[in-house]
Formats: sequence, structure tokens, C-alpha cells
Amino acid sequence: MKIAYDCQGGDHAPHAIVRGALKAKTEDIEPVFYGDRDALIEIDGVDPEHIVHCSESILQEESPVVAIRRKKDSAIVRALADLKKGEVDGVVSAGSTGALLAGGMFIVKRKEGVERAALPVILKVGSQTKLLLDVGANVDVDPSTLLSFGHMGRDYLRRVEGVEDPTVSLLNIGTEEGKGNRQVKEAYELFKESMPNFVGNVEARDVLFKSPDVIVSDGFSGNILLKGMEGVIGYVQESIKTQLAGDMPSDVKRQIVDIMRNMLGQLDYQRYGGVPLLGLEKPVFKVHGSSDEQAIVAATERLVKMVQTM
Amino acid sequence: MKIAYDCQGGDHAPHAIVRGALKAKTEDIEPVFYGDRDALIEIDGVDPEHIVHCSESILQEESPVVAIRRKKDSAIVRALADLKKGEVDGVVSAGSTGALLAGGMFIVKRKEGVERAALPVILKVGSQTKLLLDVGANVDVDPSTLLSFGHMGRDYLRRVEGVEDPTVSLLNIGTEEGKGNRQVKEAYELFKESMPNFVGNVEARDVLFKSPDVIVSDGFSGNILLKGMEGVIGYVQESIKTQLAGDMPSDVKRQIVDIMRNMLGQLDYQRYGGVPLLGLEKPVFKVHGSSDEQAIVAATERLVKMVQTM
Repeated sequence: MKIAYDCQGGDHAPHAIVRGALKAKTEDIEPVFYGDRDALIEIDGVDPEHIVHCSESILQEESPVVAIRRKKDSAIVRALADLKKGEVDGVVSAGSTGALLAGGMFIVKRKEGVERAALPVILKVGSQTKLLLDVGANVDVDPSTLLSFGHMGRDYLRRVEGVEDPTVSLLNIGTEEGKGNRQVKEAYELFKESMPNFVGNVEARDVLFKSPDVIVSDGFSGNILLKGMEGVIGYVQESIKTQLAGDMPSDVKRQIVDIMRNMLGQLDYQRYGGVPLLGLEKPVFKVHGSSDEQAIVAATERLVKMVQTM
Repeated sequence: MKIAYDCQGGDHAPHAIVRGALKAKTEDIEPVFYGDRDALIEIDGVDPEHIVHCSESILQEESPVVAIRRKKDSAIVRALADLKKGEVDGVVSAGSTGALLAGGMFIVKRKEGVERAALPVILKVGSQTKLLLDVGANVDVDPSTLLSFGHMGRDYLRRVEGVEDPTVSLLNIGTEEGKGNRQVKEAYELFKESMPNFVGNVEARDVLFKSPDVIVSDGFSGNILLKGMEGVIGYVQESIKTQLAGDMPSDVKRQIVDIMRNMLGQLDYQRYGGVPLLGLEKPVFKVHGSSDEQAIVAATERLVKMVQTM
């Protein structure tokens, strides 16, 4: 199996990407590195035959659609084109989410019957692995699109995460049937009719700790929820750090650090390595821009599972 | 000035409500208690002439619109009707938010030119007092309604909180112009044209600590954001509490409790006593169901300011 790595995107590219890829390499997994040949060849352990030189690169601030159309020799476009042609089996990228999504839709294309590709977030809380989707790829959606998100989420959890018969819910402002805006109310009817294991609405406050396996949302609300939670988590971390900088016995400090680590560990869904782009014909995995070596290893494991079960 | 207190709603009614009202009482502020005469008359300090006996009460789980129409002798309906007639100057209630909103619109009515009444949340962070609205009263809105929310928010902050020329923003999934769903994109144009001190989009992660004074949202996204943040805060509190229950020297425990209190204090917007219903002809203040005496005092102070500046 060949895995393409975008070695241009992300804060620690190309080194962290390459080192992660080499760590994830096995007899069955062969990495292919897309990026600047001169830089890649310098990195220990890179086989020059596994480099695909790219002369352009897509920047975070570029318009995704324009960048995908114009920068034909960027790592994202080349890797996705090779994926489409079958020369590689999956793509890992820490680059622009927008460009990867646009490229996924224009180059790799959607699976038959899928209206819109979706960007989920994987929430691993305690022993539960769940999926909130969409979190930003689709901001204006029909109720029928929400239904397809539910199916994609169930499908991913079953195939890749081994969750048996995942439960599905709709993100809403109340749990009772009949709550919500027009879009969600209509979606509720569709889900009730045809979604296996649909368990109703879930409120934002229960998404982390008391929710079903799949939480379906339009990309606008999903993004707002995710970033709102991240904002509070970031504040908690900042506040504790500031207070720990003050005068304090070292054993107290140590215990506080332990408590914080326990608490925040539960919330650390980034640990997971990234998220799959759902609804595409072939597997594409987006890792966080700040991904380190370990995140690339985790992403590769997920991607391999996607390839094997697709 | 006469302030009507709904003595039926809330977890600690009627005692906490009445005690708070009596504490907030001054020469200029006369409380009027709406509820069960027999229960009210038993409470120390209640002047029987200040009781308006109500034989019915609206329950949390009732349909707000139906309850308002049917239960004419409930505290909420009687107090709002007296407000409309000018027999009292403002209403404080810890009862059903939905019933209070429905009653506000049907009985008190909206201010001229106001399309929809809004439910904001007051976020007091550091020295900044800000308003996120709407958080659940209006789930399907037009861009022009969002514009009116911006005006109402500015107006309230200026009049009641003394914020000079408040800045206004739109809750969105990115800060750049052109981001967001159809609704927000259209609203952006309207805000750019006519909203004083409009500073653009704000992302959910910045709402608590790096946002302008007024954050405008439809009631669906606003509710999702608020509850999502509450979910994380609740988890942080729970997790710390559980860990503190473990074996630990008492001085360490004390320091951890201090640190947590500092941290969570910043997030504790409930301390504020509640939220005004915006866009109504006369002042109505909704306090949290779990409000204690102190929350009622704080709410009364806010309400008095609203009456004085309306």
C-alpha cells in the first residue's frame, strides 16, 4: 500500500511529516513524499525514489478553490491526482483544510450518491470514540444532506473505529422532538423515518460527555460548537499556566499539574491525529497544522484502516 | 418605582425571591409579590398589601404559548399584565424562559419597530461587560433581524451598563469578510452599511476573551455556543471536584481550590443575576432558575437601571 504525504503543509513540515511517515512505515506501507526534492533528500532515511518533487505550494491564506485550480504542481494537487489515478492509496496532509476539501471534491471526487463531502471531528472521550460532523465544510445544507452526514458518520465509525451499530443524533437546542430551527425540525423527520439507531436530539452541553456516537450538524453550528469548546479549554490551560508561574511550593505545583493533565487529557481530541474527509471516493486524512511526528503516525494508522475497509 | 416579583418560578421560590426583593428594597423601590398569598404571608418582612394572590402557576415543562394563554391567574401572566397597564414598572422572574418570552411578546408587546424580542446572555469577563444575543428566543431569523439584535445589544450596554459606544460583531466561523453561511454573509453587508462601530466577524473561540462588546447570532447558533461552553466548564468543575475528593494534603487542596476559584470566577457569568428580555416595551428581567437571594438583588439593580433609562 502506498501512502502519499503532503510535505508542504503544517507548522513542522517537512521534518515532522517525514519522520512520522518513516516511523509508520512497515513492509506493507510505503510512503511517498510530495514536496521540495532538495529539502526532502536531506532528511535521514528518505529514499530518493519515494520523492515526488513539487515546485509550487499552497499557502494557508490562499482561496482554496483558486489555489487548487492554479497550483497544479503543489503537493496537495499532485498527491490527490495520484490518488485518483490509483498510483497511491491514500493521502495525509497537514495543509490548508479548505484546499484539501476543494481538491478532494474536484480531483478525487465524491462517492456515488454522496451530495457533499463532510469534515468531521473525532471526539475520543473515555472509552467512546465519536464523530461530530460537519464542522465547517458545508455551512448551507438541506435536511437531506444532514441525513447523508449521519450515514457517513455511522459508516466511518463502524468500518474504521470498529464501533458496532453506532447511535446517531442531531445537534439541537433542546432534546424534545419539535425543538430547533426549520432545518433541524425537517431533518428530524427524515432521521426518524430512515436512520438506523437514531436516538433523537442532543444538546451542545452534552456533546462531550453524554452524547450518542454520531452527532450531526450543519457546518456552521458544528464549527461554532467546536471552537466555542476549544476557546474554554484554551482559557483553562492559559489560566492554570499563569497561576502556576506564581510563587508556590513545588509539591503543590506538581499535584496541580497532575490534576490538570488528568482533566485535559479527556478533552484532548487532537491526540487522535486528525480527521478523515468523508464522502470521497478514496481516503484522504487531514491532520492538524501543528501536528508532530506522533500525530502523523496516528493519522497513518487511521488512513490504512480506511484503505483496507473502503 | 414598583417592581413585580414572580414568586412561583425558580428552584428556591418563593423564599429566595422574596428575601432578595426585600434586600433590594429602598425608599424608592417597592416590591410587589405575585404568588400564593398563604405562603407569602408567612415570610418575615412581607407586607400583606404588597401581595398579589395568584391561584395558578406555570410549570417548566408546559408549552409556553399555551400556558400564557390559559393560565391567566399565574404569577407571570398577572405580573406582565400589570406591567403593561403601568401598575408596576418592571418584572423579575425565575420561571420558564419560554413562558416569560411568550408573555413578553403577547402581553407587554414589542417596542415599535422591533421585529423580534431577543434573549441575550451577559458575559462579564475581566472588566468587560458584553452581550451575546440571541441565545435561543429566535432560531429562524432574517439578516435584518440580526441587525436589530445588534442595535438592541448596543442600546442595552450603553444605557444600563454604561459602556460607551459599544463595538458590535457577528458570530461566524472565520474572521474574514465573505466567511459564513448565507444568512451571516447577507447580514455582514447590512451591518457594514449601517451598524455604528461594527468591527466584523468574531469566531466562537474568541467570544469569551477576545471579542467586541456585542456579539450577534441567530438563536440557534448562539444557544449551541453558550451550552457548548457551559458543557466544558461543567466538566472542568466536575473533574476537579472528583480529583479533590482523593487523598491529598489539606494545604495542597486549599491551594488548588483557590486556583480553581480564580479560574472559574472569570467564567461565572451567572453571578450577574440574569438577563434582560430585549426589544419589549417595558423592562422584564429573567433570572436563572437556581437564583439565590443575591442573584435577585443583582437582577433588581439591573432592572431599576432599565426602568430609569427606558
